[in-house]
Amino acid sequence: MLKAGRSQEEIRQRNLGTLLRHVHLGGPVSRTALAGRMGLNRSTIMALTAELTSAGLVREELPKDTGRAGRPSLVVRPQSDRVYVLAFDVAVDRLVAARVGLGGKVLDRREAVRRRAGADLDDVVGVLAGFAHEMHREADSNSVCVGIGASYCGMIRPGDGMVRFGPDMGWVDQAFGTELGLRLELGLPVSVGNEAHLGALAEHQRGVGIGVQNLIYLHGDVGVGGGIIVGGKLLDGDGGYGCELGHMVVNPYNGRPCGCGSRGCLEAEVGERALLDAAGRSPELVGREAVRAVVDAAERGDIVAREALHRIGDWLGIGVANLINLFNPGLVVFGGMLRDVYRGSAAQVRSRITANVLVISREKVRLRTSALGDDTTLMGAAELAFSELMADPLNVLTRATS
Amino acid sequence: MLKAGRSQEEIRQRNLGTLLRHVHLGGPVSRTALAGRMGLNRSTIMALTAELTSAGLVREELPKDTGRAGRPSLVVRPQSDRVYVLAFDVAVDRLVAARVGLGGKVLDRREAVRRRAGADLDDVVGVLAGFAHEMHREADSNSVCVGIGASYCGMIRPGDGMVRFGPDMGWVDQAFGTELGLRLELGLPVSVGNEAHLGALAEHQRGVGIGVQNLIYLHGDVGVGGGIIVGGKLLDGDGGYGCELGHMVVNPYNGRPCGCGSRGCLEAEVGERALLDAAGRSPELVGREAVRAVVDAAERGDIVAREALHRIGDWLGIGVANLINLFNPGLVVFGGMLRDVYRGSAAQVRSRITANVLVISREKVRLRTSALGDDTTLMGAAELAFSELMADPLNVLTRATS
Repeated sequence: MLKAGRSQEEIRQRNLGTLLRHVHLGGPVSRTALAGRMGLNRSTIMALTAELTSAGLVREELPKDTGRAGRPSLVVRPQSDRVYVLAFDVAVDRLVAARVGLGGKVLDRREAVRRRAGADLDDVVGVLAGFAHEMHREADSNSVCVGIGASYCGMIRPGDGMVRFGPDMGWVDQAFGTELGLRLELGLPVSVGNEAHLGALAEHQRGVGIGVQNLIYLHGDVGVGGGIIVGGKLLDGDGGYGCELGHMVVNPYNGRPCGCGSRGCLEAEVGERALLDAAGRSPELVGREAVRAVVDAAERGDIVAREALHRIGDWLGIGVANLINLFNPGLVVFGGMLRDVYRGSAAQVRSRITANVLVISREKVRLRTSALGDDTTLMGAAELAFSELMADPLNVLTRATS
Repeated sequence: MLKAGRSQEEIRQRNLGTLLRHVHLGGPVSRTALAGRMGLNRSTIMALTAELTSAGLVREELPKDTGRAGRPSLVVRPQSDRVYVLAFDVAVDRLVAARVGLGGKVLDRREAVRRRAGADLDDVVGVLAGFAHEMHREADSNSVCVGIGASYCGMIRPGDGMVRFGPDMGWVDQAFGTELGLRLELGLPVSVGNEAHLGALAEHQRGVGIGVQNLIYLHGDVGVGGGIIVGGKLLDGDGGYGCELGHMVVNPYNGRPCGCGSRGCLEAEVGERALLDAAGRSPELVGREAVRAVVDAAERGDIVAREALHRIGDWLGIGVANLINLFNPGLVVFGGMLRDVYRGSAAQVRSRITANVLVISREKVRLRTSALGDDTTLMGAAELAFSELMADPLNVLTRATS
C-alpha cells in the first residue's frame, strides 16, 4: 500500500544507498556511468557522491589515461581499506573469519579445520571471536567495522541468529548469533544466515548470477543445501526456513537414510557420504578432498569412480530437473563440493533434465559452477553484514564510528 | 532503483486503485475502515471515494441501522451491476464463460461439457465467443466491460496468451488469447493465464488464502498443476512457466508414464487416471464425477476404493512434503479434483508430511481445500481481467466506455 509520497530525505537516503551499492558491487565507476545506471542527472550524482566522499565511504579519482580527448569523468571507488565488515563461515569441516572491505575485498582472513560433530557452541564461538580479535588488532586504527555477518550450515531463525537445527553439528536451538555478538564485544549485532541462502545471495550479487532474476543455488557441504532467488529476492517462506532442497525426496522407496530421519532425500542420494560409498571409499574418509579425489580418479579413467559419479549424477539430475520444473529459472549454480560432483557428472545431470523437464521450461536455463569458489558462503556472510550500510549509508556509518 | 519522488498524480492514481481493490476484494466497507486500512486521513479517503463514485465504480450508502448512536460512516460499495469483466475457463472437460461484476459477483454464466482432446482452437474459441455474445446481449446497456481474462489448462506465454503447450488438449503454440480477442470484437485484449496459477491467485485474493504470504495451490484437472505464491506474489520464473509441480518426479524408477514423456511425475502418480486405475475402474470412465465416486465409495467402506486412495495419498503426500521443504509455506490448498482426493486421503498426506518434512518447516503449515470450489480458476481469470482496472481505475474505465 502506498500511503503517501516519500519525503525528500527518504529519497536522498535511498539514492545514497543505491549509489554506494553500485560502487560496492560493481567496482570503480565513473560519475557518468552512475548517472546512466541510476537514471539521475549528473548534478544529483555529484551531490550524492560528495556526501559519500566526505563520510569516507568512497573516494573520487581521475581515471587512468582513457586515451580520449576532453575532460574525463571522475571515477568513484569504494574505501575498501577504511570501511569493512567481519564475516564468519561455520561449515561442517572448517571455521573461517575474514575482514572484508567495502567493495568485497578480503583484507584479512583466518581459517581453522575442525573436527566433525560434537563441537559445542562455546568452542565454535571462541575460535571465531579469537580470530576476530586478532584481525581487529591488526586493522588500521582509522578503519571502521560497519557490520557483522555469519554463515552457518543449518536452519537459522531470522532476526536473532538462533540455530534451530544444525544436523551436521548436532545443534538444536543454540543462540549462535547472540553468543557470537556478546563474545566479539563490538557493540554490533551479528546477522546470521543459512550457508546455502547466503551462497545464493553472493552468487547473485557478485558471482555467476549477476542480473539473473530466477536462480537456484545448490550447495554441497557434507549435506546439500539450497538458496533460491525468485524474482530477484531470496525465497525465505513464512519462517525463513525455505529452500531446503536437500530434503526433497527423490527416492522414496529404495532411498538411503538421511540425517533428517527420512529416506531418499536428495542430500542422502548425492551428499558426500553417498558419493564416497558408491566409489567404495573407506567410511573413515571424509571431506571435500576425498570427494575431489573421486572426481579426479574418474577423470583419469577409474571405472569405479566414474560409475559412482554417474549414479550420483543421475540423482542430482532428478533433483535439478524437479527444481527447474518448479522455478523456471535462468540459471542453476552448483557450489561447495557439488562443484566437483557436477564436474564429474554433468552429462548425467543434463540427460535427466532433457528427460524430465518440460521443453518450454528448460529452453533457456544455464547450468554453471559457482564463481566465488570456496568463498561463496563467506562472501554471502559479508554481503549480509553490509546490507544495513547499503540501506542507510550515513546513519549506519555514524553509528559505527560513534 | 528509486529514480525520484513519485508525482502527486501517480500517488493519486495508486491510491484510487488501492481503495478500489479494498472495495472489490473486501466488499462493502465504511470510509472509516478504509482510512484505517490504507493509513490515510478521512478527508483524503472522502476525496478518493468521490472520484470513484462520480466515475460510477463505487457508490456510497448509509449503512443499515448500526445500533450505535451518532452519525454513521458511509459505506462504500462496488458497482457490481455496472462494471464487469468477461472471464473464461478452458478446462479439460468443460468450457465456462461468465460475466463477473466488480466485487467478484457472478452476474451471468454459461457452461458446456466438452469432449476430451482433439478440440481445435477454432471450436473452443467459437463456443466461448458465442457464450460471450449471448451474455453481452443480455447485459444492461449501461454496464461496461473493463477487461477480459481466460484460464487455460496448459503453459501460457505471458503477454500474448499463446498456449505453448496444452498436453491434455493436444495444443502446441496456439494463439488462443489473440484469436479469442479477435472473435469477441470488443476492442479489448484477452489476458490468459495457466489455470493453476490463476487458481492460486483467486484463493490468495478471495479464497482460503487471504493474507497468506506463502501459499501452494495444487490443482487437479485431469493432470496436476500448481500455483505458488512466494512473498505475496505468484512465482512465475524467467519465462512465466514456473510452478509445474505436477512434473516433479516422485517415483523415478517404478513410476507410471506421464503425458509429458517422463515417468513417475506427481501428475502421473496422483492424477485422475492413476486414481481410477488404482480403484480398478474401467478405462472408459473419466472425469471429476468418476473421481468423486471413488472417494464416496471409500467413505462408504469400499476396500478397493479406500486402498486406491491411500496409495494415491501417499504419493500426494510425498509431493506436498517436498514442496513444504522447498517453500516453507503457511498454507497448502488442494483445488479442482484434488479436493476430493485430499478428502479421501488426508491421513496419508499428513503422515508423509510428518515423515518427510523437517520439523521446523512444518511447525505452522495448514492444509485446506479451496474455498472457491469449482469456480477457483474462473474467478482467477476474472481477477486477471480486473487487474488493469485496479492499477489505474479512471483511465481504464474511460478507455472502456469511449
